[in-house]
Amino acid sequence: MSIRLDENNYGKQRLRLLRLSRRDGWHHIKELTLGIRFEGDFESAHSKGDNRKILPTDTMKNTVYALARQHPIKTAESFCLHLADHFLARNPQTSRVRIDAVETLWTRLPIGDKSHAYTFTGASAERRIASVDATRNEKIIHAGIEGLVVLKATQSAFEGFLRDEYTTLKEARNRILATVISARWLYRDAEPQSDAIWNEVRQTMLETFADHDSQSLQHTLYAMGEAVLHKFGRIREIRLSLPNKHYNLVDLSTFKLDNPDAVFLPTDEPHGLIEATLRKD
Amino acid sequence: MSIRLDENNYGKQRLRLLRLSRRDGWHHIKELTLGIRFEGDFESAHSKGDNRKILPTDTMKNTVYALARQHPIKTAESFCLHLADHFLARNPQTSRVRIDAVETLWTRLPIGDKSHAYTFTGASAERRIASVDATRNEKIIHAGIEGLVVLKATQSAFEGFLRDEYTTLKEARNRILATVISARWLYRDAEPQSDAIWNEVRQTMLETFADHDSQSLQHTLYAMGEAVLHKFGRIREIRLSLPNKHYNLVDLSTFKLDNPDAVFLPTDEPHGLIEATLRKD
Amino acid sequence: MSIRLDENNYGKQRLRLLRLSRRDGWHHIKELTLGIRFEGDFESAHSKGDNRKILPTDTMKNTVYALARQHPIKTAESFCLHLADHFLARNPQTSRVRIDAVETLWTRLPIGDKSHAYTFTGASAERRIASVDATRNEKIIHAGIEGLVVLKATQSAFEGFLRDEYTTLKEARNRILATVISARWLYRDAEPQSDAIWNEVRQTMLETFADHDSQSLQHTLYAMGEAVLHKFGRIREIRLSLPNKHYNLVDLSTFKLDNPDAVFLPTDEPHGLIEATLRKD
Amino acid sequence: MSIRLDENNYGKQRLRLLRLSRRDGWHHIKELTLGIRFEGDFESAHSKGDNRKILPTDTMKNTVYALARQHPIKTAESFCLHLADHFLARNPQTSRVRIDAVETLWTRLPIGDKSHAYTFTGASAERRIASVDATRNEKIIHAGIEGLVVLKATQSAFEGFLRDEYTTLKEARNRILATVISARWLYRDAEPQSDAIWNEVRQTMLETFADHDSQSLQHTLYAMGEAVLHKFGRIREIRLSLPNKHYNLVDLSTFKLDNPDAVFLPTDEPHGLIEATLRKD
Repeated sequence: MSIRLDENNYGKQRLRLLRLSRRDGWHHIKELTLGIRFEGDFESAHSKGDNRKILPTDTMKNTVYALARQHPIKTAESFCLHLADHFLARNPQTSRVRIDAVETLWTRLPIGDKSHAYTFTGASAERRIASVDATRNEKIIHAGIEGLVVLKATQSAFEGFLRDEYTTLKEARNRILATVISARWLYRDAEPQSDAIWNEVRQTMLETFADHDSQSLQHTLYAMGEAVLHKFGRIREIRLSLPNKHYNLVDLSTFKLDNPDAVFLPTDEPHGLIEATLRKD
Repeated sequence: MSIRLDENNYGKQRLRLLRLSRRDGWHHIKELTLGIRFEGDFESAHSKGDNRKILPTDTMKNTVYALARQHPIKTAESFCLHLADHFLARNPQTSRVRIDAVETLWTRLPIGDKSHAYTFTGASAERRIASVDATRNEKIIHAGIEGLVVLKATQSAFEGFLRDEYTTLKEARNRILATVISARWLYRDAEPQSDAIWNEVRQTMLETFADHDSQSLQHTLYAMGEAVLHKFGRIREIRLSLPNKHYNLVDLSTFKLDNPDAVFLPTDEPHGLIEATLRKD
Repeated sequence: MSIRLDENNYGKQRLRLLRLSRRDGWHHIKELTLGIRFEGDFESAHSKGDNRKILPTDTMKNTVYALARQHPIKTAESFCLHLADHFLARNPQTSRVRIDAVETLWTRLPIGDKSHAYTFTGASAERRIASVDATRNEKIIHAGIEGLVVLKATQSAFEGFLRDEYTTLKEARNRILATVISARWLYRDAEPQSDAIWNEVRQTMLETFADHDSQSLQHTLYAMGEAVLHKFGRIREIRLSLPNKHYNLVDLSTFKLDNPDAVFLPTDEPHGLIEATLRKD
Repeated sequence: MSIRLDENNYGKQRLRLLRLSRRDGWHHIKELTLGIRFEGDFESAHSKGDNRKILPTDTMKNTVYALARQHPIKTAESFCLHLADHFLARNPQTSRVRIDAVETLWTRLPIGDKSHAYTFTGASAERRIASVDATRNEKIIHAGIEGLVVLKATQSAFEGFLRDEYTTLKEARNRILATVISARWLYRDAEPQSDAIWNEVRQTMLETFADHDSQSLQHTLYAMGEAVLHKFGRIREIRLSLPNKHYNLVDLSTFKLDNPDAVFLPTDEPHGLIEATLRKD
């Protein structure tokens, strides 16, 4: 019996960074949490304990800070690309470098009609994500969003579903529909895209969620993905992962009370989960 | 040796609730997580296992949903008061009832200049809090806020501090100051206050944080509390608890790079913590 | 109107530390997360931004590591005392120092009948806690435990409780009782106690939980506290905080199935919460 | 441009369950958190809102409880298989069913030399995992472990690594090595295996970690995987994912103190991450 080292990677995770720049009294901040993964010729490190091809993960960390100093960070994607290029160029022992970025979103403090020059509030649990998966032949850039919580109080049904002996769910013509949007899309070209596009993709998903006459969360997921693919020529594929965050109508009949869509119990577990990828042919 | 039952309480925690109401095609939602605590004559339950004075926590739960059905929830405070009154009136065995509410904040989805009639996004990790501490003689209402993340990129110093043999910190004329505001204030009168006041208190704290020429986080905390007490006659006391979320300037000199307030390392641990109560005499 | 600075404190939280010592090829580790709070004469720092009495929290951090190097850490309590004494002696501006420690528990890896000399597994989510609250006149030492999950599958009832119009709970003769023990006790003398006592207190609580003929969680809480106070002369007070982690019997009657204590639904929310202090007179 | 629905699945997550059985006064409990995913012919649900092929996730939930009542749960794997078989047999619209189980581990309370008949403590943050990935042609069973925290205080080096201009890490002959074992292995035959095997795999990994003369975490990972594949003929593949939980030696030279492996700073971020699959040829 022989044993073979199959897929393997190593790197540094949860590398945190805030990049500050000041222009004309106006302060700009970008906060990222990065993950770095190397794939390559690391067989001897595993089987023999030979570290000659292992760039320490501590060096990856130092590199992130040094490069962040030398270059402005226009977008999470552009910085990921920059890091991937740097590591591939210097490390012939690697065949693939993957950089993942999670951006903590900050909003300028509004004061009256204006925005503050240097004070920011933490916008939300929502995160912007970017990833670059690079070999010497190909670069794939994903952009995305995580943790965007959304709820609609009407225009959502779930009827006509399959039933078996364990089905007790009642048909719903008008239920609350709530989810946490997790989306990841792929640009046709390996170029970092503008912040404006990211914001438009986000708004397209939200407006579709809001205005869709939903027959199920699958139905709404598809509508959201379709709207993005139709509107943005540069996006060739989108994957959505949507938990169905149930708000259950509380049964108050024991207390001789009706409950016409008034009192709901929010629950985290169990929850549904709907996932799909939509792709242009 | 005799053993005595001292301070004790019991109740239900993490009671979740969404209240929906519709007016003229406009949907309103309020989402709360409640905690209930009873104090009273429960000695025999503890020492003898006699449950005759124990209203089950399951009944507390049912009561929350039944009352939420019968009454609109104008504010978290008003619903807490309502529950406290209900429980005190029906349960002579209790001497004190405490209700805590944490409100999950939802924002109407903006579409162009308008707000959507029934679709909401989860505003942030920020939570509005309310609590009512009620006996048959007195009611104390606290309002507050938790999880409001805020950062200023300049106008914050920390100099002239006490030094001993273990002090290595350098004086800072211009550092990043970041915190997560946790505040709790006390109204003079045991009346639930309007949403407008809560929003104004919040904005007063944020603007003070932004515009204060900070010599330390203690200094800024005090300015924030003072501004609230000066502006709002109805508030007689405020407590602030502010972690000092350090953003440390990365030392890049090893790589022959300067770092003029460009690249920072955000850290969660360790962190400073500053807490104080300000009170009107 | 004048504004007064009332109760206030500052310090450093989430200071992490692992202390390693080697004796005769046998390695010992102690891992602590510390919190430090100073109270004292800090009015001018708040109201005037005068930092001359402020020892930086960064210095507190350095002090922890320097003292940990110079002294072995016998127990969490002894190290907390050491720190409190150090800070009070050097800082006349402080009136009170509070040190909290949370100990991450490690267990030697068992190999056959033996324990490994230098390899440990993370024992559990359970934490040992210690705190010292010290002024120049008095020191109070608490020891305790958090996160100790325990469940009994029988010998737990809840019957004969108070009912009102919102009561639907059925009487239970034989239910699952589960909780997460959080306990904190006070020694008569301000001396750090041995690890042996801490282990015996823990075991006393667990055995009482197991063998008690429970009429309610209040009833069991009281029995646990009473057993500790009876057995340990040095302990004068104990506070227990016990969530009632409900395991609800699933109703399968719709599917023509009975459920004689076979299938339960574990839930985290809502949950009961029972808290009490027992004290020797 | 046409849009195509690509990979998609739906199901229920975080389904919690405790199964109790009593034999001869001896109580047995098994606590699982389940996830269910269906793949199949769901195009019309997405693109047309036609739910006729959608078995509600609520029905999946009911099925879990009904089947748990009708059958004992010998192991997490056997219950996953049972569920997968049930769903595939009744649902011709599905092509693939995946069941994931996470087992909360409970330990009988030790009292002296004995174990308690019906009282258990929550063993640790460690979880046993099982998954079944089933089509009508093939079943793949994975077993595994998550959250097993382990630390060795010596016999770990990291030397001779690749250096570049951003490398500052010092060579270490004797460092603390700590990780959280996440492992997942594949049995040759699609049969649920005994608890004994799972325990032996776990112990094999732990003893290898302890006794290995580690040149890097990659080196130790490989040794752990190799030991498992050598010892267990039935296992054909194992994947390990090991974060490098850094314990950094604190530099106390500023305070004129040496630090000969005495005081370490535990950190969660950033951390290394090493992942690899080992496979029998």
